[in-house]
Amino acid sequence: MKIALDVMGGDRAPTVNIEGARKALNEFPDIEKIYMVGREDVVRPACDAARLDSTRIEIVNADDVVEMNESGLMAVRQKKKSSISVAVDLVKNGEAAAIVSAGNTGAAVAASTIRLHLLKGVERAGIVSQLPNDFGVCNVTDTGANPDAKPRHLVGYAVMASVLANKIYKKPRPKVGVMSNGAEDEKGSEFSKATFRLLKYMETQGNLPFEFLGNIEGHDLFEHEVDVVLTDGFTGNVLLKSCEATAIAFSNWLKRELKKNPIRIAGALLSSGAFQAMKNRLSYEAVGGSPLLGVKGVSIIAHGSSSSIAISNALRVAREMLACGVNPMIEEQMEQLGRIPDLSEIDIH
Amino acid sequence: MKIALDVMGGDRAPTVNIEGARKALNEFPDIEKIYMVGREDVVRPACDAARLDSTRIEIVNADDVVEMNESGLMAVRQKKKSSISVAVDLVKNGEAAAIVSAGNTGAAVAASTIRLHLLKGVERAGIVSQLPNDFGVCNVTDTGANPDAKPRHLVGYAVMASVLANKIYKKPRPKVGVMSNGAEDEKGSEFSKATFRLLKYMETQGNLPFEFLGNIEGHDLFEHEVDVVLTDGFTGNVLLKSCEATAIAFSNWLKRELKKNPIRIAGALLSSGAFQAMKNRLSYEAVGGSPLLGVKGVSIIAHGSSSSIAISNALRVAREMLACGVNPMIEEQMEQLGRIPDLSEIDIH
Repeated sequence: MKIALDVMGGDRAPTVNIEGARKALNEFPDIEKIYMVGREDVVRPACDAARLDSTRIEIVNADDVVEMNESGLMAVRQKKKSSISVAVDLVKNGEAAAIVSAGNTGAAVAASTIRLHLLKGVERAGIVSQLPNDFGVCNVTDTGANPDAKPRHLVGYAVMASVLANKIYKKPRPKVGVMSNGAEDEKGSEFSKATFRLLKYMETQGNLPFEFLGNIEGHDLFEHEVDVVLTDGFTGNVLLKSCEATAIAFSNWLKRELKKNPIRIAGALLSSGAFQAMKNRLSYEAVGGSPLLGVKGVSIIAHGSSSSIAISNALRVAREMLACGVNPMIEEQMEQLGRIPDLSEIDIH
Repeated sequence: MKIALDVMGGDRAPTVNIEGARKALNEFPDIEKIYMVGREDVVRPACDAARLDSTRIEIVNADDVVEMNESGLMAVRQKKKSSISVAVDLVKNGEAAAIVSAGNTGAAVAASTIRLHLLKGVERAGIVSQLPNDFGVCNVTDTGANPDAKPRHLVGYAVMASVLANKIYKKPRPKVGVMSNGAEDEKGSEFSKATFRLLKYMETQGNLPFEFLGNIEGHDLFEHEVDVVLTDGFTGNVLLKSCEATAIAFSNWLKRELKKNPIRIAGALLSSGAFQAMKNRLSYEAVGGSPLLGVKGVSIIAHGSSSSIAISNALRVAREMLACGVNPMIEEQMEQLGRIPDLSEIDIH
């Protein structure tokens, strides 16, 4: 398989991107080629210095870069030769099967949606991010593609993320909940309550290809088997980043406490295996990248602050998505789901 | 000072509520009296058994209880004799100065707003919850009173939470940010972007009694000095519970890892002081209760799963709020702020 990498995207690009590509080429022999997309005068000497296997990379020039503080949609319209747009075009033209970017998320979403187009039956693409729990992972959808989502978009996310939970995380009938401010049916914002009603209605019609859990709240993310959590892209992004920030703050505070006196330091040395295991479990590096579901082809959004390990793992996720055939199953299930009714049709009372 | 306690509210009521009252009476001699509000046939024998100082409590009968899964507003309208309504009425009638409840949040908010009325100049009440950070605490507002807030409500929250940050957390000029899905000015949902524009406009008019930081994102909660974070009650509730859930999950996983072999167990014993310090730092027990800002009188919303320590600390928060004179300063600052313009007035472009 062939993957296009936006070498210029991310806070620590291009260095960590190139190092990540090197790691991925070493680890995954089934990656035939990585297209290294970016300013050739920067990328070529850096690839040479990092000693990337020249038979498995191809440098593709792109003059522009979308900065992190640009409006994604505007940047994609104005900078036709940005590394993200050129990388997406390689997928559009069939040269690559997947694109990986750690750059401006809005631009990666806009370029993927506009240039690759949506899968049949899909109204909006959504980013699926994984939080680790005792049952595998909880797939939070959407974490930023569509900040002002409509309830019907979340029905689509439910189907798409369930396919992911099924194909990648081996859940035969994924459990899907609506993120809310309480687990009771009555809880929620106007938006989340409308989403709840829509899914409840479709459940009674008997055509949901997953188990609908109703509303869930914070602690359900980690304590219960919830395979998919539905939310708008704004709340999902806030949720994901707040969880990450809490884990990082916790771990920093603990480190500081453990260094406070020699006895604690000795204790920490003895238990260091436990801390390493925690680090592996929680690191977004290990997750690597979040698939943008709903577009033709595979588009992986990596963290802006990705390390080389995170980039390598984002390439791994692209590889898994390609191997599992997620997209054909999404189109099939969207067709089986049929038309998503308008809220006005179900809210007759 | 005299405080009314909803003895029937919360997942572990009335036991932990009564034990919490006992702790608070021991610790805080300036609490003259706690009104213990609930079903007298339940509360009186329980107070006797717990040996509460009978000269400093007064049992007030309330026949009904609002259950956790009821609609708060409906319950307040229909159950006039619920423990939460009777407790709030003690404040309304001037017998108590503050009310503390760990019961149905919606009911506590509705009863406080409807029966106590809003402070002069306040359009909506908001719950302020504290997240610990290296600079003290970050006051997240609103965490659940008003799930479908309007941008202008968040301007009011900014003023009220800044007064709290000033009076209780001793910040001379609090730093206030808008919760968003990215720190750049362009990021956000339609709602958060409108809030940003409104605050930016009012900043240029020179009448904000705080420092406006613009947008903030997850990691800013813990890593930077942000005294107040503004968000709608739905997102704020999701944010707060997700942070709590992450800290609990982190700590459970770490415990499990530390027990995996005898060497790690020995290490954990040596470092146990560090774990205890972490527990104290992160526990919502230590925070106790979140003030509902904007109502006449003091209303403290405690966690539904409050322990007796949490209840005792919620009573402590009520005491601090009363001692600091937060409400007069809120009315003063709302008057100085003047009229909050409509979005249509500032969005002329």
